[in-house]
Amino acid sequence: MVYGEFDLIARYFNRANAYKAGNPRRDVELGIGDDCALLTVAEKQLLAVSTDTLVSGVHFLPTIDPADLGYKSLAVNLSDLAAMGADPAWLSLAITLPDINSEWLAAYSDSLFTLLDYYGMQLIGGDTTRGPLSLTLTIHGLVPTGRALTRAGARIGDWIYVTGTLGDSAAGLAILQQRLQVSDSVVRQSLVLRHLRPQPRILQGQALRTLASAAIDLSDGLISDLRHILAASDCGARVQLDAIPYSSAMMQYVEPDQALRWALSGGEDYELCFTVPEINRGAIDMALGQLGVGYTCIGQIAPSSEGLRFFRGDNTVELNWKGYDHFSQ
Amino acid sequence: MVYGEFDLIARYFNRANAYKAGNPRRDVELGIGDDCALLTVAEKQLLAVSTDTLVSGVHFLPTIDPADLGYKSLAVNLSDLAAMGADPAWLSLAITLPDINSEWLAAYSDSLFTLLDYYGMQLIGGDTTRGPLSLTLTIHGLVPTGRALTRAGARIGDWIYVTGTLGDSAAGLAILQQRLQVSDSVVRQSLVLRHLRPQPRILQGQALRTLASAAIDLSDGLISDLRHILAASDCGARVQLDAIPYSSAMMQYVEPDQALRWALSGGEDYELCFTVPEINRGAIDMALGQLGVGYTCIGQIAPSSEGLRFFRGDNTVELNWKGYDHFSQ
Repeated sequence: MVYGEFDLIARYFNRANAYKAGNPRRDVELGIGDDCALLTVAEKQLLAVSTDTLVSGVHFLPTIDPADLGYKSLAVNLSDLAAMGADPAWLSLAITLPDINSEWLAAYSDSLFTLLDYYGMQLIGGDTTRGPLSLTLTIHGLVPTGRALTRAGARIGDWIYVTGTLGDSAAGLAILQQRLQVSDSVVRQSLVLRHLRPQPRILQGQALRTLASAAIDLSDGLISDLRHILAASDCGARVQLDAIPYSSAMMQYVEPDQALRWALSGGEDYELCFTVPEINRGAIDMALGQLGVGYTCIGQIAPSSEGLRFFRGDNTVELNWKGYDHFSQ
Repeated sequence: MVYGEFDLIARYFNRANAYKAGNPRRDVELGIGDDCALLTVAEKQLLAVSTDTLVSGVHFLPTIDPADLGYKSLAVNLSDLAAMGADPAWLSLAITLPDINSEWLAAYSDSLFTLLDYYGMQLIGGDTTRGPLSLTLTIHGLVPTGRALTRAGARIGDWIYVTGTLGDSAAGLAILQQRLQVSDSVVRQSLVLRHLRPQPRILQGQALRTLASAAIDLSDGLISDLRHILAASDCGARVQLDAIPYSSAMMQYVEPDQALRWALSGGEDYELCFTVPEINRGAIDMALGQLGVGYTCIGQIAPSSEGLRFFRGDNTVELNWKGYDHFSQ
């Protein structure tokens, strides 16, 4: 049997998750190695599917550590499942490489498999091609029928929440690009990790399934992503800028105006933004309180005619920023 | 609401298949426009998933007509479903573009949607990013539980078949690259179309579900792809070179040696290669005979120890070619 270099690359990914757990999923009838993977979806479960492409120089710095890229390329995909309240299941990975670098492939795939194993996921297939470096991941999750969180369910009077703190990822990117100087190495590292190793809020998404009226993950920045909820739900919103949660790490080194800009339009925080009917606010505290990540009420859903408005106390504040758009920067 | 150019691109693809049929699939609970698509898989159906990436300059000529690319990018993915005997269902499309060209996007997406509609498929999501031109498609199909065709079921004595004719796609590519001169414009066009507009053998795959013991689609050439069946089934094979089916179009302009080389290792024919137990040979004639595409028995499965051998009559023939490998050319 003749093997090309092409096959050698594929071997980095054809592990059947043997890297750590060694146990392939029982709902995978046929994994990597045939024309298609074959998968079982249990009764009363919906399949949730999302695709993300990451291009070198656009979505990540060409100098990125392949281990960080292996983590992040999957984490941003997991974040889409989190926003639907879905359980992670299977991954298809299409990887395009300019050349073959064993060290790079080993580091990338080790890191990817560590995160796959953490979430009990299985790599079910993909493609390996030659070309400018880019990655396209299609993630598959499962969610009980009727329980998925969408962007369309927000109603006037619902409260608007976010998980975690906002703006840290943009601060971490600024550090990496030497636009922000941080002398304290612990603070520096924590912000950089928020950019390179975002935590997908899978547990929070699952906990919100029956409680939130709408949800989205914050990939492009609060302004841009909250607008998606407002458009899908035909609503407006009032956001209290004084309630935006910041990390103490960022606030030690960043002026309040810059922090606000990064929180609202920096992008890549991969926290969840969700809306909660008044009647579920107590249950939210019960559901999220023990998961180890903060969450903050930052505003309230308003009539569509009001649009998206920002306040400090009772005073409106005008902002002219928008979310991250790869084609407009 | 602010729209970036980014959103404009997405609009070419957010049609809910309204282009022709207008009827989205009933098993799509939620299509394009949220963090994930939500999909229903019926009881007693398995989900079949396959991913293909096409990179400009590697998998298609940079000068390709976007309408041809729209067709072919989906057709090669459909061919993977055909090889499993699966029914086409949903598509995720990740498209990376160097810049925005409305004419290109309109032609590409019109052609893609025409083929989606033909097979009753729905585009359920994807990603649109900036970078060097490439496409990654993840296709989803459905197949009755226990009926999927795999590469692993071939047994000693089973007969080896292929659909259609082999080598035409390589001949068509040679014409496009001006390595082959064909004066007859009808012949020329028919061979070029075999390269640009391969016909996925979906109907044949469905008809073979209960009859073939193994199947694969011919993307890399018969030698390379038949070897995949042999490896997965732990078998050898005897192939009769005199039985290889050629089109009369190709044979008018191509020497027999070149025709054989293209048939065995040219790649991109997207015909099916499948194996059939003796007892099912009559049923195969019934099942495939009315589908309008020829099929030919080209050999027989042999013990693993024999490897893959080629014959003319009773004489063995030595060949040293292998299949198409993007990294070795």
